[in-house]
Amino acid sequence: APTTLRIAEIFGPTIQGEGALIGEPTVFVRAGGCDYRCSWCDSLHAVDSRYRDTWAPMATDEIWQEVTRLSGGQPLTVSLSGGNPAIQNFAPLIALGKEAGYRFACETQGSISQPWFAALDTLVLSPKPPSSGHRVDWQKFDHCLLAARGCDQIVLKIVIFDDCDYDWAKAVAHRYPDLPLYLQPGNPEVDPETPVDLTAATERLHWLIEKVTADRWFVPRVLPQLHVLVWGNKRGV
Amino acid sequence: APTTLRIAEIFGPTIQGEGALIGEPTVFVRAGGCDYRCSWCDSLHAVDSRYRDTWAPMATDEIWQEVTRLSGGQPLTVSLSGGNPAIQNFAPLIALGKEAGYRFACETQGSISQPWFAALDTLVLSPKPPSSGHRVDWQKFDHCLLAARGCDQIVLKIVIFDDCDYDWAKAVAHRYPDLPLYLQPGNPEVDPETPVDLTAATERLHWLIEKVTADRWFVPRVLPQLHVLVWGNKRGV
Ligand code: SF4
Ligand code: SF4
Repeated sequence: APTTLRIAEIFGPTIQGEGALIGEPTVFVRAGGCDYRCSWCDSLHAVDSRYRDTWAPMATDEIWQEVTRLSGGQPLTVSLSGGNPAIQNFAPLIALGKEAGYRFACETQGSISQPWFAALDTLVLSPKPPSSGHRVDWQKFDHCLLAARGCDQIVLKIVIFDDCDYDWAKAVAHRYPDLPLYLQPGNPEVDPETPVDLTAATERLHWLIEKVTADRWFVPRVLPQLHVLVWGNKRGV
Repeated sequence: APTTLRIAEIFGPTIQGEGALIGEPTVFVRAGGCDYRCSWCDSLHAVDSRYRDTWAPMATDEIWQEVTRLSGGQPLTVSLSGGNPAIQNFAPLIALGKEAGYRFACETQGSISQPWFAALDTLVLSPKPPSSGHRVDWQKFDHCLLAARGCDQIVLKIVIFDDCDYDWAKAVAHRYPDLPLYLQPGNPEVDPETPVDLTAATERLHWLIEKVTADRWFVPRVLPQLHVLVWGNKRGV
């Protein structure tokens, strides 16, 4: 039997809602499983082992078939997300897709490195700030950067919940001055059943813009989570 | 006396709310005067000659001083907008700013070309769709592209109000397959005194995302006007 991957969901095409590829038509492949347990994780259904039996064991061919079906065979960007997609081996999927002209992006916290990072078009490293409850292992993080050499676009994305996260993001930016940096306000509303408070969401963005500009820290781009503004916390969009 | 420019407003730092530089910390220099009169223009205060006496005649040095003051002397992106900034000569301002490490972007409809386009870091050409009431003169538009040779980043941005605009955007994309394309839903709420209906604004974005994905047209990025979501139609933010 071929190796299978644990897949929480495959959905799209929709637009990428965050970071460097914001607005880009994308099919998402969400891997099941994560080595982290962030306090404010908005993807628990792809993290918590309680949801484990909802993760489909899929062979690379099956995943690729579903991506092709959703995209109607029209090349677009495929985003590997999670959970932490770096737990599993996406090399064969990337190879298949690239052959057909698809682009591949991956978002991971940077705790596990994979040789296939180098085959990506975009690697988003999203180190988790103090409010997550985790502490970044920078040696592992640097391994991810090393593994990604050859990847066209490597960017940092940091979620900011509070002043402490903000100061931490500045220190991270200082550590990696050559990596483009994207900041986004944290979203404390993660219940998929509760409609998002649009005013509160835009106020959090406002808060972060004010902080950056008052500080005259003109390095990061500041962006919201568009999908939250458009669809709330609904899954599969 | 040195030549002066007609400036409707200089404001920031804030973030760029649209297109390729979305999220980027920016000071805006809004030029007064426009050769167009789009039916849905959201910058009438920089267009209509009725507001002409609110436009300050400013020498390049004065504009630069204000940009420096607002940014605290910290280099960032300066966006030349309008009205149509291509009516006036921003070459001396760009030269001054670049020397100090600032980046320059300009957004124009592409009806008037300027030699200083080539000195920009980013040129956003925003040809106006049928709903504007204007018809693009493609010869003039191509002159703008020619003048911009040497500019690092040239992108197209098209505002979409209806199906007709959408089909037109597809034809434009076909004409310029090598230019990155950004689409944004049109905003019919342009009164600065009326609070923006956030739900309606996100629904317009939703509509455009649905059109693009249902069509499997994976070429453009689809983005909202963030500043409208965050600040409504207020000026100077
Ligand atoms: S790393 Fe991401 S997916 Fe994993 S727990 Fe944290 S927020 Fe959730
Ligand atoms: S080109 Fe721009 S500034 Fe001029 S009238 Fe049209 S929308 Fe307004």
